[in-house]
Amino acid sequence: KNRGCLLINCPDKPGIVATVSRFLFQYNANIIESSQYSTDPEGGDFFIRIEFECPDLQSKKEEIKLSFEAVAENFNMDWKITFASEMKKTAIFVSKELHCLRELLWEWQNGDLMTELAVVISNHEDSREIVEGLGIPFHYIPASKENRNEVEAKQLQLLQEYEIDLIVLARYMQILTPKFVEANPKRIINIHHSFLPAFVGARPYDRAYQRGVKLIGATSHYVTNDLDEGPIIEQDIMRVDHRDDIAALKKIGRSIERSVLARAVKWHLEDRIIVDGNKTIVF
Amino acid sequence: KNRGCLLINCPDKPGIVATVSRFLFQYNANIIESSQYSTDPEGGDFFIRIEFECPDLQSKKEEIKLSFEAVAENFNMDWKITFASEMKKTAIFVSKELHCLRELLWEWQNGDLMTELAVVISNHEDSREIVEGLGIPFHYIPASKENRNEVEAKQLQLLQEYEIDLIVLARYMQILTPKFVEANPKRIINIHHSFLPAFVGARPYDRAYQRGVKLIGATSHYVTNDLDEGPIIEQDIMRVDHRDDIAALKKIGRSIERSVLARAVKWHLEDRIIVDGNKTIVF
Amino acid sequence: KNRGCLLINCPDKPGIVATVSRFLFQYNANIIESSQYSTDPEGGDFFIRIEFECPDLQSKKEEIKLSFEAVAENFNMDWKITFASEMKKTAIFVSKELHCLRELLWEWQNGDLMTELAVVISNHEDSREIVEGLGIPFHYIPASKENRNEVEAKQLQLLQEYEIDLIVLARYMQILTPKFVEANPKRIINIHHSFLPAFVGARPYDRAYQRGVKLIGATSHYVTNDLDEGPIIEQDIMRVDHRDDIAALKKIGRSIERSVLARAVKWHLEDRIIVDGNKTIVF
Amino acid sequence: KNRGCLLINCPDKPGIVATVSRFLFQYNANIIESSQYSTDPEGGDFFIRIEFECPDLQSKKEEIKLSFEAVAENFNMDWKITFASEMKKTAIFVSKELHCLRELLWEWQNGDLMTELAVVISNHEDSREIVEGLGIPFHYIPASKENRNEVEAKQLQLLQEYEIDLIVLARYMQILTPKFVEANPKRIINIHHSFLPAFVGARPYDRAYQRGVKLIGATSHYVTNDLDEGPIIEQDIMRVDHRDDIAALKKIGRSIERSVLARAVKWHLEDRIIVDGNKTIVF
Repeated sequence: KNRGCLLINCPDKPGIVATVSRFLFQYNANIIESSQYSTDPEGGDFFIRIEFECPDLQSKKEEIKLSFEAVAENFNMDWKITFASEMKKTAIFVSKELHCLRELLWEWQNGDLMTELAVVISNHEDSREIVEGLGIPFHYIPASKENRNEVEAKQLQLLQEYEIDLIVLARYMQILTPKFVEANPKRIINIHHSFLPAFVGARPYDRAYQRGVKLIGATSHYVTNDLDEGPIIEQDIMRVDHRDDIAALKKIGRSIERSVLARAVKWHLEDRIIVDGNKTIVF
Repeated sequence: KNRGCLLINCPDKPGIVATVSRFLFQYNANIIESSQYSTDPEGGDFFIRIEFECPDLQSKKEEIKLSFEAVAENFNMDWKITFASEMKKTAIFVSKELHCLRELLWEWQNGDLMTELAVVISNHEDSREIVEGLGIPFHYIPASKENRNEVEAKQLQLLQEYEIDLIVLARYMQILTPKFVEANPKRIINIHHSFLPAFVGARPYDRAYQRGVKLIGATSHYVTNDLDEGPIIEQDIMRVDHRDDIAALKKIGRSIERSVLARAVKWHLEDRIIVDGNKTIVF
Repeated sequence: KNRGCLLINCPDKPGIVATVSRFLFQYNANIIESSQYSTDPEGGDFFIRIEFECPDLQSKKEEIKLSFEAVAENFNMDWKITFASEMKKTAIFVSKELHCLRELLWEWQNGDLMTELAVVISNHEDSREIVEGLGIPFHYIPASKENRNEVEAKQLQLLQEYEIDLIVLARYMQILTPKFVEANPKRIINIHHSFLPAFVGARPYDRAYQRGVKLIGATSHYVTNDLDEGPIIEQDIMRVDHRDDIAALKKIGRSIERSVLARAVKWHLEDRIIVDGNKTIVF
Repeated sequence: KNRGCLLINCPDKPGIVATVSRFLFQYNANIIESSQYSTDPEGGDFFIRIEFECPDLQSKKEEIKLSFEAVAENFNMDWKITFASEMKKTAIFVSKELHCLRELLWEWQNGDLMTELAVVISNHEDSREIVEGLGIPFHYIPASKENRNEVEAKQLQLLQEYEIDLIVLARYMQILTPKFVEANPKRIINIHHSFLPAFVGARPYDRAYQRGVKLIGATSHYVTNDLDEGPIIEQDIMRVDHRDDIAALKKIGRSIERSVLARAVKWHLEDRIIVDGNKTIVF
């Protein structure tokens, strides 16, 4: 596959697009899709995502990376180039609620998640059968507040072993330590079962019920060390009414959670997301 | 018009519907629409709204009210009966942003708000022309933190004078005192420009922008003395993205605010809302 | 389980609710949920669904049915009573696309479809493993235009054998003969992959793409002998744009199809649907 | 205002973006927003919209246009350049239903429609007051099947007189002749009160009611000589149910129609739409 993707973030000024598109043209690359955004044309930040197709890309990868260094330096760019041929490796963390895991597995089986599902890690045995049935390695690591460091040590070792690029918390009900989070910046995606910033923290459906809201939602975000405060990737909601008790809210919520998480993961895998401070730009 | 509406709230037990429907049948009333809800069939609270049509209702109104007393006492009912022939009187409070006012005036002109728009009160002159152009009395009462008691005294007098049943805060940017709120329980409807409980308080669009949410919303609720904590009547949201700056959020928000407020006001006027603690049942 | 559900359709006139609710009260039944609708209070049709809880319902079922006859005759009612204790039996027909089947199986595993999934019938082997893995009988009946009568004879025999109450066409890509449809009135639910009446017939996503629509949808309806013209139960849509090719439309469509079909099936199983001519009333 | 917008459509091949962005850079233009789309990277059609800011644009306009000719010829481009300083002139055609007109006037008053509202033409007097009240010329031209040619002659003359760029049919209930349509290609926007292609033609809400749909919608499209078959710009829907009679559908529909039309008009005015055969690309 001769596809590549270039993500750039730099101070805005005239000439960036001209320079970058000329650079790609020199390699005979055809731009397939390009999206850009500037916080402010005068003195703001400029973001661009360019997907391109380039004949014999495989053999030119290193050269392209190397020669782009000069361009990047000139414009003071924060940049990244990825190649469709180098598939990202994903680990899914899950606990007892399996709806998000199931959705991801389904999308993956359909060929809609372009990733290697390298490993599933859980603090329960519930998902073992379905995971191993698909030929994906499953690791059971019982977890509690007491053995957190030990658990995370095992997890980090597995992540290294499987060369993981992305960690998806598909309703994983354990808090991660700052150490774990810092070791994996901008590559842990969580699903929170409320439309953040409403109902940060535990038991959001119970609290939504108490408050009498008419909409419930779910939010997918990158994990940072501020609980439920990381950059939001995607959110969605559904309508509820007074007849819906907490069990009904949870059931409705499950269907929001699984679609919101699946979209966020897909966008990450397609390199559509740029993190800008505590926000995301989704191209 | 021979329409009436009966709203009941009482402890649930068998026989309520049988008794009430037999009562109405004695008056030859035909039940047009009926909705009910029980928090729990065993020992819960029961709520019902019955809309009925009754020949010669005009002449039987007092008798119906009187004779229902006995039924109500028997089941320990909290109840209310209203008649379509007795139109509610509404006051709208507004400041400088007129989109919610405009929407309500428009719906009212179309005959979609069954109310007498008795008066508009504002702390600015901006809306005088449009209001008076429709033949609705307009009162300008400049307001600030300093003269709050004086202002509210004038407002309360106008409400009395115009025999107001419902007060709509259509982006009225002044805080009401506890005294004012307590004098008007369950009959002040506000529009808050966020999907509550997210962004309680001031400047919600600015804060939504800072947080990087992917959805913004608006919430219509009854006003209580806890800021933005009153019973929610209706909420809605729209999708936004990183390209939307604060001005864009405000603009998108305006269109949510006006439809959410209009729905809430209409439901109140049609006696579709029962307040249950800090929640609403909307039939 | 002491729950029952009464569905009534009759000419509207005063006294129906009073009579029916008194009837239920005589059996000590408590009305849990009740919804009604009248096409016109004067000379229109009246529809009501009453869900009730009745102590020792099991032992009173026959008596209730028998004694309701007199009430029903008096008001010229078309009626039906069902009991939660008598679970409906469902057959699913499916071809090669399994997303709708998967969704139904999932909901059923979660306990969200109150039915006995008695049998899955397919003209392909693709779903055998997943179906049998859940302990549900699977029957492979290869089908084509040529052997339609023979195929349907086998299917009808299976339906009889398994005492099927509801047939769900979960993307079953064969046309049913009038004979088959007439043998199963108001109990075959189909999912059509467009927002009907747009794109009746074959290849709706291709045609949606050609037409350049900005929304695609799915429709669940009861099957009649007019292709895609039966009473609509539920519809939903999602937004698409010029970037979405036919493959993308199909993918987006799959997620609409599965949720729309699941809702329709659930409502049918909960006796929430009354067919009124070529429309449905969904309570 | 130093903003300009370049719209290009040409056969896809490598180097287009590089050439165009270099062209703009030569004029010191900064690209503010850029969107592109290719039907197929190999042998497909390429579309791009570039919004740019350029110092002293006013004085360079003619030069830019002229020198771009060479670039365009080289790539066989169909292209257009517009300048924010040259505001488009819009005519609104309306009949007796004023909700779409009102919405457009409102958006325009808020500064959200970047156009000169040059004239409103109607076959009824209903909107005269509201239009003239805003200082916009109003022309009453009574119309019927009999005098169609005469009416259109007057309309065409007014369009010429006011130098109109865009004609908006805001629920104008007269059919336009092929001659009129051909004289105004890709610049007449209509709002049809159904989600096309469902309910092409007259009385869509009546037919939606008869069919028993659960969603109703509206569609904004460019007018061609095939009734309701022109390129779709925008569509939206709302949920309805069995309780909604035709009057209710119309009322709900009005709120969809006004927002759908307003979005389509705004996108046209911002040069966000490229017509590609019978489809639109909306950037």
